[in-house]
Amino acid sequence: MSRDKETVVGTTFTELDPIFHPRSAALIGASGKPGKIGRVLMDRFLDMGFRDLYPVNPSEREILGIKAYPSVKDIPAPVDLALIVTPTNAVLPAVKDCAEKGVRAIVITSSGFGETGEKGLELEREMVRIARLGGCRIIGPNCVGIYSPSSRLPFPLDAGKESGKVGVVSQSGFFADYLTLAASRNGIGFSKAVSCGNEADLDASDFLGYLGEDPETELIVAYMEGARDGRRFHALAREISMRKPVILLKGGTTQEGAQAAASHTGSLAGSGAIWEGVLRQTGIVSAKSFEEVLDCLYAFSCQPLPKGRRVGIVSGPGGIGVCTTDACLGLGLEVPPFSPQTLARLRRAMPVVGGSIRNPLDLSLASLVNPQVYADAISILLEEENIDMLLVVAVIGGEQLRDILLKGLGDGGGKKPVAVTIMAGGPQSVAGDIALLLKSSIAAYPDGARAARALARLSEFAEFKRGFQGNQ
Amino acid sequence: MSRDKETVVGTTFTELDPIFHPRSAALIGASGKPGKIGRVLMDRFLDMGFRDLYPVNPSEREILGIKAYPSVKDIPAPVDLALIVTPTNAVLPAVKDCAEKGVRAIVITSSGFGETGEKGLELEREMVRIARLGGCRIIGPNCVGIYSPSSRLPFPLDAGKESGKVGVVSQSGFFADYLTLAASRNGIGFSKAVSCGNEADLDASDFLGYLGEDPETELIVAYMEGARDGRRFHALAREISMRKPVILLKGGTTQEGAQAAASHTGSLAGSGAIWEGVLRQTGIVSAKSFEEVLDCLYAFSCQPLPKGRRVGIVSGPGGIGVCTTDACLGLGLEVPPFSPQTLARLRRAMPVVGGSIRNPLDLSLASLVNPQVYADAISILLEEENIDMLLVVAVIGGEQLRDILLKGLGDGGGKKPVAVTIMAGGPQSVAGDIALLLKSSIAAYPDGARAARALARLSEFAEFKRGFQGNQ
Repeated sequence: MSRDKETVVGTTFTELDPIFHPRSAALIGASGKPGKIGRVLMDRFLDMGFRDLYPVNPSEREILGIKAYPSVKDIPAPVDLALIVTPTNAVLPAVKDCAEKGVRAIVITSSGFGETGEKGLELEREMVRIARLGGCRIIGPNCVGIYSPSSRLPFPLDAGKESGKVGVVSQSGFFADYLTLAASRNGIGFSKAVSCGNEADLDASDFLGYLGEDPETELIVAYMEGARDGRRFHALAREISMRKPVILLKGGTTQEGAQAAASHTGSLAGSGAIWEGVLRQTGIVSAKSFEEVLDCLYAFSCQPLPKGRRVGIVSGPGGIGVCTTDACLGLGLEVPPFSPQTLARLRRAMPVVGGSIRNPLDLSLASLVNPQVYADAISILLEEENIDMLLVVAVIGGEQLRDILLKGLGDGGGKKPVAVTIMAGGPQSVAGDIALLLKSSIAAYPDGARAARALARLSEFAEFKRGFQGNQ
Repeated sequence: MSRDKETVVGTTFTELDPIFHPRSAALIGASGKPGKIGRVLMDRFLDMGFRDLYPVNPSEREILGIKAYPSVKDIPAPVDLALIVTPTNAVLPAVKDCAEKGVRAIVITSSGFGETGEKGLELEREMVRIARLGGCRIIGPNCVGIYSPSSRLPFPLDAGKESGKVGVVSQSGFFADYLTLAASRNGIGFSKAVSCGNEADLDASDFLGYLGEDPETELIVAYMEGARDGRRFHALAREISMRKPVILLKGGTTQEGAQAAASHTGSLAGSGAIWEGVLRQTGIVSAKSFEEVLDCLYAFSCQPLPKGRRVGIVSGPGGIGVCTTDACLGLGLEVPPFSPQTLARLRRAMPVVGGSIRNPLDLSLASLVNPQVYADAISILLEEENIDMLLVVAVIGGEQLRDILLKGLGDGGGKKPVAVTIMAGGPQSVAGDIALLLKSSIAAYPDGARAARALARLSEFAEFKRGFQGNQ
């Protein structure tokens, strides 16, 4: 994949890539006062270790020990990226200064524009007109900007300094900001994340196209309320999905939700039914909630794609094994019988009193007394030809669980997707165990139905990819 | 409600209540060896502070400092309850001893009976015949028994010593055991919990009837794979639901799940479609996963029932407010416009830049800088006649969130149900915050869609109750 290849429509990779890799940045509206967004971002830039940061504030000479400038035009060096975090009425003059200074891109976090109605939209058109005169692109307004850990560019919340392979594009600032924080706490790293807000200039499709081309990005997560150009989004999404998964949460699928979206980002959310069709046709992994986005992200970030939709279930508790089977079937997955060879191997290796070696494999209370049976069951089922994925319900947690899982996966880890449900120690303990397992590239969930849903999404995406390859 | 009132069919309250309040207990198969279930239960009985415990083991004279007896018949005092945790082949002789000793009830945790097929079923019939000769009832086999904190009767996992108002009946031992542990970690207390296993004698309906009559139990959680007598279950469930909510997870709703249930508890799971009808007609709160059981339990244990299905949403993040609105609508809830009076009050009290005072109320980034706006929004919306419930999406957590919520709820807490979504600090932090809020009787969730689902269940149950009252 060439880094310079033109995306389906419009903006090219070479035009957008520098925005994510600025050598210098001006923070217009920088502040030393606690509680101000200009202070939050100062702290975050310093924490990330961004080098050439220029605070801009007409009433300060120095902010947190760094020389401040009255205007971006007073900065005695080139400025690649400017962040405008001022009150609404100071935004347009600042954009004008940036254009005159020759800034390449401007992030406008300030709100009070298109999301408030026609007057605000007019201001957006004006800011774009001014910026374009200086050859400058705009991200926002009403956004939280860009997180690019390899370039030390921070989000307001602390998503960590480590770079990873997940790209994020979001019309909701908080979605992008909190997603990167929440997932990074569980060991998931991000290549880039961008919140595009009201999309006065660059829009979600531009960034989706960029992340689709970006070699650092292997998996994309998106939040969208609407697409400015539906055809372009459709073509882009389909083209990217053939190469990397796009997990999307669509906001405003109901009339009431769409109305709320209109006052949120000024976006026209479009009909839920049309979007459903688009998501199906384009191979997009459609998540219905923030939590489902995270659940999908966990599976897609560390598990291979399955060859089919047949699940082998390994459960300690019998009742939860029954419910997890129900959940798999309800999601269109299959829980088929094991082959005679596998049954024979299981019979030799497994205790059976109170349990069952059929699919779902019910290890019974024996799994509490001797958790090593999990490792044996996993290594046997990784070789079972009748199943394409494994769902393990474990009654132990912590490092013991991790070590047993890693032992069971052995060299076979990566052959079939595995999702683990942890039922040990209660909700807080489980949250810690999920983080521990994800850091060892094991997808983990607090509930069998959620593990099943993540496997269903993996399997649907695999089918989309196979269908595409079959059509070539 | 009389404590002696006969339940719909069969077993009476007076017959079952002593089982949950034994003055003395024998543990047949007690052990001092780590890893044995007989040791786990010894530890748990001692930890709970149960007084008159008699370990029974023919090859030990003392276990953990307590005198052991070769047989239950050698115990020189009356025994109210016996727990049999021996290997399968030692169970029948032990039951015979108990019957001869005049033990009132026997819990049999041992497995290898009805769940293994016809031969095991024959053994069950034989154990019941023997027990009945001594006027003795059986719980199990293949179960974890009874948790009754007010009588210091423990489960194998540590669900705490504090008594509460939630009753549990489960055909899965692990479901009951882990549910009580997980919920107690979040501050939910239990009146009684019983795992009825293979139901050789007493069955889930007997215990459901008992908990329905039990004045200590205000809310029931159940896991069932099948009902021995469908008509009886239907009548009982409907009669109890009129007085207290029954949250039920039905295992084996699919053919594959039902097959797994057959080898789990030997239960005939029955058709998913028939059960769906039963659940609708009886007012049972039907949960589809273990996690949904907990989510419902959290709302039902601390929130009042709503007068209607109209939700007011208070959100910091706009995008999550949009998605939460979609989730509410998708669950049959309404997100109606606020009244002009409420809009006027909100307009005076709320910052609006980047936000919106419509429903969903979008507090925007201002909620991060000044979280007190949550308290104002909640206290205003508690008085809004156009809404019946509140769903708050908070971008702060910890004690700050709890204090702000308590301030906002003020004296109005309890007037309308409130569910809170916490999006702060990442998954582990949120798990801790949920426990903190639940301990202050605030229902909390990590995701807006789950908070919406809990409110939908509350509202459906309220509608069932209103329908019943209307028909009287």
